[in-house]
Amino acid sequence: MEEETKAHELAKAQREISVAEFFEKNRHLLGFDNPRKALLTAVKEAVDNSLDACEEAEILPEISVELIDMGENRFRVIVEDNGPGILKSHIPNIFAKLLYGSKFHSLRATRGQQGIGISAAGLYAQLTTGRPVKITSKISPKYPAHYCELLINTLTNKPEIVKENEVNFEKDHGTRVEMDMEAIYQKGSQSVDEYLKQTAIVNPHATIIYTNPKAEQYVFARASNEKPKIPKEIKPHPYGVEVGILIKMLKTTQAKTLQQFLSTEFSRVSAKVAKEICDKAKIKANAKVSEITRIHAESIMKAIRDTKIIAPPTDCVFPIGQELLEKGLKKELQAEFFASVTRTPSVYRGNPFIVEVAMAYGGELTAEGTCRVLRFANRVPLQYQQGAGAIHKSIIETNWKSYGLSQSSGSLPQGPLVILVHMSSVWVPFTSESKEAIAHYPEIIKEMKLALQECGRLLGKYVNKKRRVGDELKKRSYIEKYIPHLADALHKILGFPESEEKIIIENLKKILEKKRGKVESIEFNPEKNVEYDEEFAKIGKEEVEEGSE
Amino acid sequence: MEEETKAHELAKAQREISVAEFFEKNRHLLGFDNPRKALLTAVKEAVDNSLDACEEAEILPEISVELIDMGENRFRVIVEDNGPGILKSHIPNIFAKLLYGSKFHSLRATRGQQGIGISAAGLYAQLTTGRPVKITSKISPKYPAHYCELLINTLTNKPEIVKENEVNFEKDHGTRVEMDMEAIYQKGSQSVDEYLKQTAIVNPHATIIYTNPKAEQYVFARASNEKPKIPKEIKPHPYGVEVGILIKMLKTTQAKTLQQFLSTEFSRVSAKVAKEICDKAKIKANAKVSEITRIHAESIMKAIRDTKIIAPPTDCVFPIGQELLEKGLKKELQAEFFASVTRTPSVYRGNPFIVEVAMAYGGELTAEGTCRVLRFANRVPLQYQQGAGAIHKSIIETNWKSYGLSQSSGSLPQGPLVILVHMSSVWVPFTSESKEAIAHYPEIIKEMKLALQECGRLLGKYVNKKRRVGDELKKRSYIEKYIPHLADALHKILGFPESEEKIIIENLKKILEKKRGKVESIEFNPEKNVEYDEEFAKIGKEEVEEGSE
Repeated sequence: MEEETKAHELAKAQREISVAEFFEKNRHLLGFDNPRKALLTAVKEAVDNSLDACEEAEILPEISVELIDMGENRFRVIVEDNGPGILKSHIPNIFAKLLYGSKFHSLRATRGQQGIGISAAGLYAQLTTGRPVKITSKISPKYPAHYCELLINTLTNKPEIVKENEVNFEKDHGTRVEMDMEAIYQKGSQSVDEYLKQTAIVNPHATIIYTNPKAEQYVFARASNEKPKIPKEIKPHPYGVEVGILIKMLKTTQAKTLQQFLSTEFSRVSAKVAKEICDKAKIKANAKVSEITRIHAESIMKAIRDTKIIAPPTDCVFPIGQELLEKGLKKELQAEFFASVTRTPSVYRGNPFIVEVAMAYGGELTAEGTCRVLRFANRVPLQYQQGAGAIHKSIIETNWKSYGLSQSSGSLPQGPLVILVHMSSVWVPFTSESKEAIAHYPEIIKEMKLALQECGRLLGKYVNKKRRVGDELKKRSYIEKYIPHLADALHKILGFPESEEKIIIENLKKILEKKRGKVESIEFNPEKNVEYDEEFAKIGKEEVEEGSE
Repeated sequence: MEEETKAHELAKAQREISVAEFFEKNRHLLGFDNPRKALLTAVKEAVDNSLDACEEAEILPEISVELIDMGENRFRVIVEDNGPGILKSHIPNIFAKLLYGSKFHSLRATRGQQGIGISAAGLYAQLTTGRPVKITSKISPKYPAHYCELLINTLTNKPEIVKENEVNFEKDHGTRVEMDMEAIYQKGSQSVDEYLKQTAIVNPHATIIYTNPKAEQYVFARASNEKPKIPKEIKPHPYGVEVGILIKMLKTTQAKTLQQFLSTEFSRVSAKVAKEICDKAKIKANAKVSEITRIHAESIMKAIRDTKIIAPPTDCVFPIGQELLEKGLKKELQAEFFASVTRTPSVYRGNPFIVEVAMAYGGELTAEGTCRVLRFANRVPLQYQQGAGAIHKSIIETNWKSYGLSQSSGSLPQGPLVILVHMSSVWVPFTSESKEAIAHYPEIIKEMKLALQECGRLLGKYVNKKRRVGDELKKRSYIEKYIPHLADALHKILGFPESEEKIIIENLKKILEKKRGKVESIEFNPEKNVEYDEEFAKIGKEEVEEGSE
């Protein structure tokens, strides 16, 4: 039995692949496809983490972002926040271990959710420059600030501490990340500038101070001192659970009986509902969890589907709100018309989510070409893969002609229009680890379309009114042009004196007004648009887009 | 110093995320977005593995695929091969641990490369039905066959053996995978049927026996008894290495000196070239590897860029070859014209790759709409995300008008045309773990365009000739129509006898032929197209595409 087979030979090469090695080789999956996108992705991961941390600690965020050009396509990225800080013992894993974090296992609407982002940025820095990521963190005035330099051992996906010591940190608490990486800096769409601007629009409670590689500083000042509500964590809803997950939950629960299990581990399952599920599954409510088999689990799944359970609670998602959405758009755009809609929350696969849409139309927005789309997920701007994902699909599948806009089939509508779509959910189903587009779940697309339609109807009323007024003005000026000729003709035919001609003209005008009503112009008056911020609107627009996919 | 800060509180939630949990929650990243695609992905992963295993063991593959409808949207997928089998001790990790395998760490052109696919299929099965994946494997007539049932512990990404024992297996060696999953079966494009058909086209050395859920059996018989050459494994080429990887390689090498390291760990670096690199980096050739710092590594990187190193060897990629490509297309398509091009190998990021293009035109191909595109990577058909990736981009950026086809800007060319593109590489840079599209590396797109142009020119010649012949025939028939009238007019004017009129007609026809040359028709003759297989061509076409993205 000691024969060496081909299988023995092949087995020698088989071994485990560390997740760090995997993403090192596949870094484009994480948003590090090219040097320009890499810079944006690194900034984004750091800023998203800072915003999340401040929110969890109920701190009004103050974030500084600095990019320094080191020459030869190398940049230093420095992001510092006034967040709660990170325990010394947790820093290495958070910044130098992929798949580590606090957000993956909780159902709560946060910007980060994967436990990959910031360590991936560090991995990319290490890969392209060989240099460690440098962290400083302070958790309270009573504790010294901790500084450390970290590398990822990609063979094991474990952090290596290159250096660590106590340092001074001017804030009471906060975290500073610094990394050197191969990158390209460029303004325009899909730039760091544009990302920070859009972030400021949907996070009006944050102050962001940004210094670009040309040493120009921009301050996105806080527009609201109201802290956003902390989204609550929820338990999974039974409707979103699959049999494999149910079995896994049965293995790890602290509950003793099936009824207990159902009513403690799920959202919206009371003891009564739990009993109903047990009955339908033909399993005793006090059956021991440890004795539930796979066959039982399948019966429970069927029973759940047959039981009416109310939708999950929705304080776990965080809408921006109609008022702030419009405020954000007005700050950036010189338009005539603004509208916004926040839907009521809905559910896909047991995950609550909410969709918001805002629109700006006319004024100084460019009328040529298709509309501009601003996409957000859990308050994070999505800048890549514009043509992919649920938001794009929802927009092109909406009939914009009924709102007075032209649209070729399968395309975005045309005209001076900006559409903003925001989705907040306890779990945003992104189409890739780089979190660039939202997957095509039918429930999500349906909600987005409803929000677009609701906001589109408001827009349509305005567009149609504007068109009617325009048509009316045209017709009126046409009739008006002929009144003197008409009066003249009457004068000649009927032979009344010239003085009466003027009276006739006046009378005809009065009749016209009576018949066709008074028209007020609804022309655009930029003076009225007081919230518009010219400086703000300029950011990120100076150079032309390039290198995007 | 014992104050409990917010950071302490937040730290409690931080923990490691297993890669199995990650993909359990993100299964759409692996191609398990919806039940129809899940079925295809599961079959694909199993068949790709079987083909790879047979190739490595130099066995002519004989693969049976069976789908059984279990009712209520559940299907049993059974794939059995005559490959080398898998050692009993390795089965659990290969089938029930994500990121485990033999192909990730070697630079060689294989179908699988990630160590995720087949265990992801098992994970999906477990998630949707709770049932284990069942494996039988035999490595030689001298060993008993081993049977086991496996689940993945997603919390740890480790296999759990539910059951195992010795069994009978009718083949001398081979592996059988069986799993039950939630799925939808449908024919048409993006179906299992279509995948197997396309697989047969580009793997003419394989026999595939397929039984669909309607119990219809298809045999894709081996068209060639020649085993494909086993692609060789290569070492990385210095041009494709980044500083982070270089530092990692320096840590794990067995070499003692820098010169040794460079000449043993890289492809195309002789002792002489290694010496040149050391000199340019201003480091002694006999410097100890253990003493090379990050700063040194950066100098070495610069020195590599400044040193002329020949391109990597190319016996690590496996082209299908022009002849077999055309043969494959002829088997499926009733066309008039076939052409194919295999480029010489090229390199992106140090990875050798080769591009092949084949085209079929005219005949019974539909002339309406845009052309059909068949995409392959390392002999695996890519059926999803047609509009994404390097192949699509290369085709739409090629100017097809110069080959006589119409094309709107940014679109595929129109007409009765099928384009097949195959890329083989030691590392295909897919845009997602589900391996649906090839990333936009400029070097890859350039090669694809060159191949398309080369093949396009052959097509252009044919299309233009066909058009010329058509035009000529039209013109000629036009002139011919007037010859009798001309002769009649001459007869009337000149008054010669009627008998001479016929001679004049004959003479005029001769002059026409002399002036305009003889024309042979190049019309399509289906009889001549002997290789076309009507039954084969029908497979996968019966039902209409649905549920694709």
